[in-house]
Amino acid sequence: MAVKLPRKDMFDLPEGVIYLDGNSLGPLPSGATERTAEVIRDEWGGQLIKAWNTADWMALPKKVGDRIAGLIGAPEGSVATGDTLSIKVYQALAAALKMNPERRVILSDNGNFPSDLYMAQGLIGTIDKGYELRTPAPEDVAEAITEDVAVVMLTQVDYRSGRMHDMVEITRKAHAVGAVMIWDLAHSAGAVPLDLTGSNAEFAVGCSYKYLNGGPGAPAFIYVRPDLATTVQPALAGWLGHEAPFAMDPEYRPAMSTERMRVGTPPIVQLSLLDHALNVWDGVDMTDLRAASVALSECFIKEVEARCPQLTLASPRDAKERGSQVSFAFEHGYAAMQACIDRGVIGDFRAPNIMRFGFTPLYLDEADVIRAAEIIEEVIGKELWRDPKYQTVSKVT
Amino acid sequence: MAVKLPRKDMFDLPEGVIYLDGNSLGPLPSGATERTAEVIRDEWGGQLIKAWNTADWMALPKKVGDRIAGLIGAPEGSVATGDTLSIKVYQALAAALKMNPERRVILSDNGNFPSDLYMAQGLIGTIDKGYELRTPAPEDVAEAITEDVAVVMLTQVDYRSGRMHDMVEITRKAHAVGAVMIWDLAHSAGAVPLDLTGSNAEFAVGCSYKYLNGGPGAPAFIYVRPDLATTVQPALAGWLGHEAPFAMDPEYRPAMSTERMRVGTPPIVQLSLLDHALNVWDGVDMTDLRAASVALSECFIKEVEARCPQLTLASPRDAKERGSQVSFAFEHGYAAMQACIDRGVIGDFRAPNIMRFGFTPLYLDEADVIRAAEIIEEVIGKELWRDPKYQTVSKVT
Repeated sequence: MAVKLPRKDMFDLPEGVIYLDGNSLGPLPSGATERTAEVIRDEWGGQLIKAWNTADWMALPKKVGDRIAGLIGAPEGSVATGDTLSIKVYQALAAALKMNPERRVILSDNGNFPSDLYMAQGLIGTIDKGYELRTPAPEDVAEAITEDVAVVMLTQVDYRSGRMHDMVEITRKAHAVGAVMIWDLAHSAGAVPLDLTGSNAEFAVGCSYKYLNGGPGAPAFIYVRPDLATTVQPALAGWLGHEAPFAMDPEYRPAMSTERMRVGTPPIVQLSLLDHALNVWDGVDMTDLRAASVALSECFIKEVEARCPQLTLASPRDAKERGSQVSFAFEHGYAAMQACIDRGVIGDFRAPNIMRFGFTPLYLDEADVIRAAEIIEEVIGKELWRDPKYQTVSKVT
Repeated sequence: MAVKLPRKDMFDLPEGVIYLDGNSLGPLPSGATERTAEVIRDEWGGQLIKAWNTADWMALPKKVGDRIAGLIGAPEGSVATGDTLSIKVYQALAAALKMNPERRVILSDNGNFPSDLYMAQGLIGTIDKGYELRTPAPEDVAEAITEDVAVVMLTQVDYRSGRMHDMVEITRKAHAVGAVMIWDLAHSAGAVPLDLTGSNAEFAVGCSYKYLNGGPGAPAFIYVRPDLATTVQPALAGWLGHEAPFAMDPEYRPAMSTERMRVGTPPIVQLSLLDHALNVWDGVDMTDLRAASVALSECFIKEVEARCPQLTLASPRDAKERGSQVSFAFEHGYAAMQACIDRGVIGDFRAPNIMRFGFTPLYLDEADVIRAAEIIEEVIGKELWRDPKYQTVSKVT
């Protein structure tokens, strides 16, 4: 039976904070400090090198991968974990290009997260065989999927607007022209119901520090469609993707599974933290989560639009086209967000003018959303953002 | 003034254990559990997304890089941290090949850690322009540095035997034929005095979970010779290596510093743990450390050879040619090592027959070494390794 949402008791949120930035960094799950202390003190400190076996660190990357697979509609054994999302993008892209060796076009969109585009640029420069990265506007991507495209690489949910691509439809179009499909699920995993198997996409990648609450710099993941797991060519051919890492074979022989997408020694402390964070999802029905997310974001749009005519909705109005965030454009968005944060409503800002708010039904309810709207109204209506202390741009918001 | 060694009070070692495996996974520095709890509970939990600024997470990769630079004879600003060692090998190698575009040979040796060779193989397959990886025996490498070599990539200290390459001499030979030099310092950083600047090598990479005691899966590092920092071409062009990550520029523009070798979002929890672990090095004179390391390993060789004629020294006898480990070959090495571990002497085993012991003067003294030799004598002399429970091969040793 599905658990009831929200599950506020499973998070340690600071008193008086309404956290609308779980789409950037999820909050602290209860018990995570204690679990990490165990890993450090008892497993590392107490068992030392033996912990690779005795605490089963060796199995942890796959265990966590299987738990993530369950949240993204993928089968057991299809998800490898570790590294950062950028690295996983590179792995997927390099493998995809090898599957389509005659073509030279990587198609993405100009709403993709910059690091995905940068990794493509870096790979193009490394291979140096005339590859081209095309980045039309998100709404023009479907039409841009032409016969010369080797790979379509898109982030399903736009990090600025929350606009959501149709995974099934775009994957179908990609396959119709013989292109390989890569989905970046950074703003999807744990945010919207996903059916990777049903999408038929070859690859998906994602991070775990947003809606999966794995903590700052938590490991990333990569999905490989099971029929390809034993044939994809790993560009980052690390020893832990080897079929027998401890044979110390001089020749790389990839594991006969998705584990070939592993690279180096896994970050055990952060993986353990993520493993603990995934407990929050036990019993959560993703359809319930989506319904709650839509209700929260619809309420937020209604409340903010009624209270703040100065703000312009920058997300799709139709909930079906949105992920689990709502963005508003406001000329003084940076300062206004600082003023909101100062009053306990934590969202974030993305250049040039986007105030971004994430909705996570795991720890938010309607009362939080209404209270947030009241505080935003105060900041905007009374122009509290004009205070000079909110004008200084810090490194991250 | 240099501190006195060992500094046993700065580590939490289990009672009754003589830990000779710090060359595989360094032990737990005192206070690391508490420091990590602060990062998780107070920084992540309490400050949430704001911690990137308020806890200065943004600056942490460079701060840690600068601290490592101080231990490897490199100047401030020349070391970037993050990812795994395998990833850093790939970055260095890809950048080095771009510096020598007319040549097609990567020279390493067959004693290099397999993952380094695998990463080269993966890169060769990705570029697919006829690159060749040559791996002569370590003792033949110097002669194999010929005019067709694009890059020489070596691990300074052999992970099996502890045999040490002469960094200055080999780098000089590489440069004499116009090759680029990459040093893997996995078994060197924190183990032997290093003078990267004096070596004149273009790149160095290393990990921090061995002699730097950063914990399981601690982040890796990469050094770029300062005159190249603004020109090397990053293959893994991630957003945190961008000149202005938060400008969300669609075009990659690498940072005008070694920071261009950063890739994705840094693993803040593990970086904080490593930062804490590096406190152990405050005031340590690397010349003192080396002298103590040599004294411990000389004592160990003398004691073990006198007590166990069944074991054959597999490390160079001349301390000047050894890193900070001693290996013995023994046909039943796997079982013997299990029997030693069972009696509190923790070393490790590397196929096919190497019993490997690391010496870390930070937490070991002569009494430990003699006690270890006594226990090894008991295991070997009484053939305690014949016990069936020591025959089962576990995943890692």
